[in-house]
Amino acid sequence: MISKESISTYFKTLQEDICKALEQADGKEKFAEEVWQREGGGGGCSRVMQNGKIIEKGGVNFSSVYGLLPENIQKALNLKKAGFYATGVSIIIHPESPMIPIIHANVRYFETEDGKNWFGGGIDLTPHYVVKEDAHFFHTYLKKVCDKNDLSFYPKFKKWADDYFFIPHRNETRGIGGIFFDHLTETENTSKKNIFEFVQSVGDSFVPIYTHLIEKNRNLSFTENEKKWQLLRRGRYVEFNLVYDKGTKFGLDTGGRIESILVSLPQNASWLYNYTPKENSLEAKTLNFLKKDIDWLSSLT
Amino acid sequence: MISKESISTYFKTLQEDICKALEQADGKEKFAEEVWQREGGGGGCSRVMQNGKIIEKGGVNFSSVYGLLPENIQKALNLKKAGFYATGVSIIIHPESPMIPIIHANVRYFETEDGKNWFGGGIDLTPHYVVKEDAHFFHTYLKKVCDKNDLSFYPKFKKWADDYFFIPHRNETRGIGGIFFDHLTETENTSKKNIFEFVQSVGDSFVPIYTHLIEKNRNLSFTENEKKWQLLRRGRYVEFNLVYDKGTKFGLDTGGRIESILVSLPQNASWLYNYTPKENSLEAKTLNFLKKDIDWLSSLT
Repeated sequence: MISKESISTYFKTLQEDICKALEQADGKEKFAEEVWQREGGGGGCSRVMQNGKIIEKGGVNFSSVYGLLPENIQKALNLKKAGFYATGVSIIIHPESPMIPIIHANVRYFETEDGKNWFGGGIDLTPHYVVKEDAHFFHTYLKKVCDKNDLSFYPKFKKWADDYFFIPHRNETRGIGGIFFDHLTETENTSKKNIFEFVQSVGDSFVPIYTHLIEKNRNLSFTENEKKWQLLRRGRYVEFNLVYDKGTKFGLDTGGRIESILVSLPQNASWLYNYTPKENSLEAKTLNFLKKDIDWLSSLT
Repeated sequence: MISKESISTYFKTLQEDICKALEQADGKEKFAEEVWQREGGGGGCSRVMQNGKIIEKGGVNFSSVYGLLPENIQKALNLKKAGFYATGVSIIIHPESPMIPIIHANVRYFETEDGKNWFGGGIDLTPHYVVKEDAHFFHTYLKKVCDKNDLSFYPKFKKWADDYFFIPHRNETRGIGGIFFDHLTETENTSKKNIFEFVQSVGDSFVPIYTHLIEKNRNLSFTENEKKWQLLRRGRYVEFNLVYDKGTKFGLDTGGRIESILVSLPQNASWLYNYTPKENSLEAKTLNFLKKDIDWLSSLT
């Protein structure tokens, strides 16, 4: 029997481990912690780093909340009773260097008074410049994590990420995707224990993935123009998060802790009217990679 | 009889006049023009200035479009036939100096195949630093414009702007409001001619209002910290426009010309985690003014 307490304890430990590893990689700044209580029950712990050597702005947030669902959500979930429990960790890192990708990850668990429960989560990458080798590494790693549990997971969750992290009005994906899943629950074939193990593997993959990408790219130099491009890409990130991201929308609608929700926004971002990168530039090549259904596993050929 | 052609002609002339006046005030940059066609019928003319002396990014857009409404909108408007015609001008100016306010204005006309027609529009101001004298000037000017037509307009449309330009998740108004109106149509007491005259007065008030605010504040010096504050306020502007603005949402949903719609976003904006200005600072005082229902007409006392 996997209790909500054991899940929440894992998530809290994951937050600690990720912060420790990121502080070590950054080498300059530490995460500042804020513990908060939720009016209706439970609370959380926000950890934010700003102006580090590597991390310009990053948040690693843990929460464990319970109470009664708003009527509309209870209805949408088709629940007889309103009681719920939710716990999770969400991570968003905006690096200082345009040569290091933005990363976002989330693992979460939801339980209802009705006796239903499920897991959700994922990891996705938003490189300012798409580097095939890094994209290949990232997707290969995630496939390995998925395959350990269920061979159907990677293709399914990779497509889910492509579809989810998409900006319709730009006809661009936010980045190179990754994996995204929701409502994962026990079935005849899979126990809750198995699913929890999978979610743990996803959570545990964050540190090796991102520290690899940091170490590989941290010493690359960059120009002022590359920095400007980074700000434009961050503008797109802001567009996705404010217009489409369901977690953000849910948080804003239900009066969540605003600063924790919007920690996903970069320290700065920019918008230029009608900006188009030069043909065959690295920027133009990156735009060409911001499409659904690219097979990154074989992208090195 | 006020024809749609005469309304559209006025709007096009208004665009010309505003651009000319803004170019003169700026003294360095000119508006670049792009003429575009709409697939379903009609088109428009976008004029954008970037990196001026006064105007960091500004758009003055005219459009005149017609065709068939999407079914959901036809239903929402309770129309038997799908044919429509719409024309308007919308203006958004992000100045370089934090001492000059952001301004937004819009005048528009809508006509249906069913024989209905109405006007909408408004002007609102978003100072990075609220200056009582400027706010008083702005609202007094708008009241005068409204009162010439109908004494009920200013209080009604001022409240409408307060309610519309509000950011619920921040519990802040976007700026100091102004006037906002929609679905203005002829009644027993008001002819279409009267309403069009009012809309023209609103359109014509843009240049005297904004050139006054530019001239009064253009020579004020500012510090790096004041510039930083401007970027944070622009962040809020981005939040409003991407999360709540109905025009933006409508444009993104219906596949409007993205660059014209998102010209409202500033050239750069920033977000700092949990930033709170020092007590009694000018920044803190500005936050105190970002509330609904402030009576700016008597704000000098």
